[in-house]
Amino acid sequence: MSLRKDAEQIIRRSIDAVLPDVAVADALSDKDFGSGRVVLVSVGKAAWQMARAAYDTLGNRIDAGIVITKYDHVKGRIADFEMVEAGHPVPDENSFAGTEKALSLVNGLGVDDTVLFLLSGGGSALFEKPRIAGEELGALTEALLASGADIVEMNTIRKRLSAVKGGRFALACAPAKVYAVVLSDIIGDPLDMIASGPAYPDSSTCEDAKRIVEKYQLSLSKEARRCLEEETPKALSNVETVINGSVRQLVAAAGETAKEWGYEPVLLTDCLSCEASEAGSFLGAIAKTHQDAASSLAFIAGGETVVHLKGNGKGGRNQELALAGGLAIRGLKDTAIFSVGSDGTDGPTDAAGGYMDGESISDALLAKAQKALSDNNAYPFLKETGGLIKTGPTGTNVNDVAVLLIKRQ
Amino acid sequence: MSLRKDAEQIIRRSIDAVLPDVAVADALSDKDFGSGRVVLVSVGKAAWQMARAAYDTLGNRIDAGIVITKYDHVKGRIADFEMVEAGHPVPDENSFAGTEKALSLVNGLGVDDTVLFLLSGGGSALFEKPRIAGEELGALTEALLASGADIVEMNTIRKRLSAVKGGRFALACAPAKVYAVVLSDIIGDPLDMIASGPAYPDSSTCEDAKRIVEKYQLSLSKEARRCLEEETPKALSNVETVINGSVRQLVAAAGETAKEWGYEPVLLTDCLSCEASEAGSFLGAIAKTHQDAASSLAFIAGGETVVHLKGNGKGGRNQELALAGGLAIRGLKDTAIFSVGSDGTDGPTDAAGGYMDGESISDALLAKAQKALSDNNAYPFLKETGGLIKTGPTGTNVNDVAVLLIKRQ
Repeated sequence: MSLRKDAEQIIRRSIDAVLPDVAVADALSDKDFGSGRVVLVSVGKAAWQMARAAYDTLGNRIDAGIVITKYDHVKGRIADFEMVEAGHPVPDENSFAGTEKALSLVNGLGVDDTVLFLLSGGGSALFEKPRIAGEELGALTEALLASGADIVEMNTIRKRLSAVKGGRFALACAPAKVYAVVLSDIIGDPLDMIASGPAYPDSSTCEDAKRIVEKYQLSLSKEARRCLEEETPKALSNVETVINGSVRQLVAAAGETAKEWGYEPVLLTDCLSCEASEAGSFLGAIAKTHQDAASSLAFIAGGETVVHLKGNGKGGRNQELALAGGLAIRGLKDTAIFSVGSDGTDGPTDAAGGYMDGESISDALLAKAQKALSDNNAYPFLKETGGLIKTGPTGTNVNDVAVLLIKRQ
Repeated sequence: MSLRKDAEQIIRRSIDAVLPDVAVADALSDKDFGSGRVVLVSVGKAAWQMARAAYDTLGNRIDAGIVITKYDHVKGRIADFEMVEAGHPVPDENSFAGTEKALSLVNGLGVDDTVLFLLSGGGSALFEKPRIAGEELGALTEALLASGADIVEMNTIRKRLSAVKGGRFALACAPAKVYAVVLSDIIGDPLDMIASGPAYPDSSTCEDAKRIVEKYQLSLSKEARRCLEEETPKALSNVETVINGSVRQLVAAAGETAKEWGYEPVLLTDCLSCEASEAGSFLGAIAKTHQDAASSLAFIAGGETVVHLKGNGKGGRNQELALAGGLAIRGLKDTAIFSVGSDGTDGPTDAAGGYMDGESISDALLAKAQKALSDNNAYPFLKETGGLIKTGPTGTNVNDVAVLLIKRQ
């Protein structure tokens, strides 16, 4: 039980370290917006918290604002900002309507005005004005998700099918300046990929898009094919960007907390991008080899794994990683593997991730656990064994952190 | 180029450390075989080297002997021992004929006699007397390999379809004693699984076999089904066993050599068992995060990965791990990932493994590398880029070692 408590502490403290509030306040405290108007557009899973922090710092200096976030992520009114909740990970009508409202808000601004653009993960789905039929865009997003395409590949396609992504939103704001404050949910912080880079020059090319279409054998309408051949802006002179939170801080905080609780932290990576279950297996293999460790160890791997769906069960990449890890460390003493999404939601579930230790999978449960893994159905199994990690929406989104704990006296 | 040289050194030195010669000599030096006959039966990829080392130690104290190994693995005559080369990983007629000869050799021995049984990896295919038609056994082995079954699962099935595996060879030797000297090719050294445990009580059960048949939807003859329901020996009183080499020594030697060459070694695991390409991706993610390291680092992962075939190209698990790693570390400076099978053969190729560094995959080669990975076709790509590691048959077989090198001044 104390292993589980250590895990809960590490999760809570590492997520606290990447909450947007302080970072947004930092990014705004020294900022002079001159005499022009300031219009806030806050988009993403953390949009409400970021807008709240901006309002706490700037108050009525903000002339108008709109928040576009995931369902159930609006936590109350902020001044007279417009609040929009919309579809994620698949965009829906509310995504499109909210984006139109944002475009209206920045329409007609002058060269002295500023768009304060607060951006966090999830923006690719939430902030969207499709250049093709919404149905095709939705189907395409689902096909890409199911095929296991990574977020870089997804966004390379989506940018070209959009009137706001790949730098096109910043073009719509011109001649006004855009001050972008970004919470990074993509490993390595490539600014043109976060939320598909609405205010950042696009580094991906039409050639890249073509290659991805071939790789996943995507079927496209003639209209969509035409969009994929149109290049995105490669330079934007009206934009200034600040990154204020990323997976680097998440894993660092996990390491610091583990250390406080007596573990020697070993930071493996903050760029994890492999198959979720295989990452669990790899961490499990590390666990087996270090059972004779003289002191407690915490191996930490941050990033964002992928799941290539085989079954149609309920789960998410963090739960799947934990379940595969649980199978690998079965029977090991005082050893646990857990993985959690910093945004508090893992896949289409109400859990943030999963926790498994060496005792979680009894002999009687082994076949069930194996079946749950091969069916991508980790959620019910973790629920049954008390392994669901629930945090509720955290208001931040800087990828995931997976931890292997080996506790020794 | 010096990175490649470091890799070659690490490979050579770590394989040298697990060559069977010294270990076999050690296992035999104190051994008293009394006044009875000593019959040598040496089976596996390292059979010739192990028999050679035994003959060098015991000389004419050995009354008769047989060596059963892979094609091209016999390096010359040893006394008047019978030499048999046979099929691997799929058993063939020579496997069956050699095994019959070994059974004849141990037939009629008395209670004072000893069978000196030298066992190394590959024995599951090389040492076989099937209880079902050879064609069905071959087809079944191929089906299990292609489905990605692990070696534990494969052997659980093969033991029950065999007259020599799962302890049954030791029964055939009785009342003579069996002195087994084992080179371990299975992580964790489970003696009943190495070469499917011809001289070790079987811990797997008919229930396990049934579960595996269901898991991989194997189609079986009525005869085979009947064999799977017959239990294997659970105790053997005439056997003494010594393990004299395993992946643990392989990774330890890799770490020591890396240290001598200026790298700080980080032993991740000696139990790696996940998908080969995903292990490469994981090591690549580690590489990205440690680019700013102040001193040189060597992350070491031993074990045996698996490949779930998607394409039908040419390659092996080590080459596939290296190629996936190469894609992940593309563009990184003084960073390399390599992986090698200690037996010197990786899959059905003449290479022992693969090497990739940050410069191996140019922009022009990117699409080709990605296609090679998804087609399980690493060999031609590695050949083109100078990334094949060739050692020739090494005479040992204690799994694989994968290494990530980050060289810093």
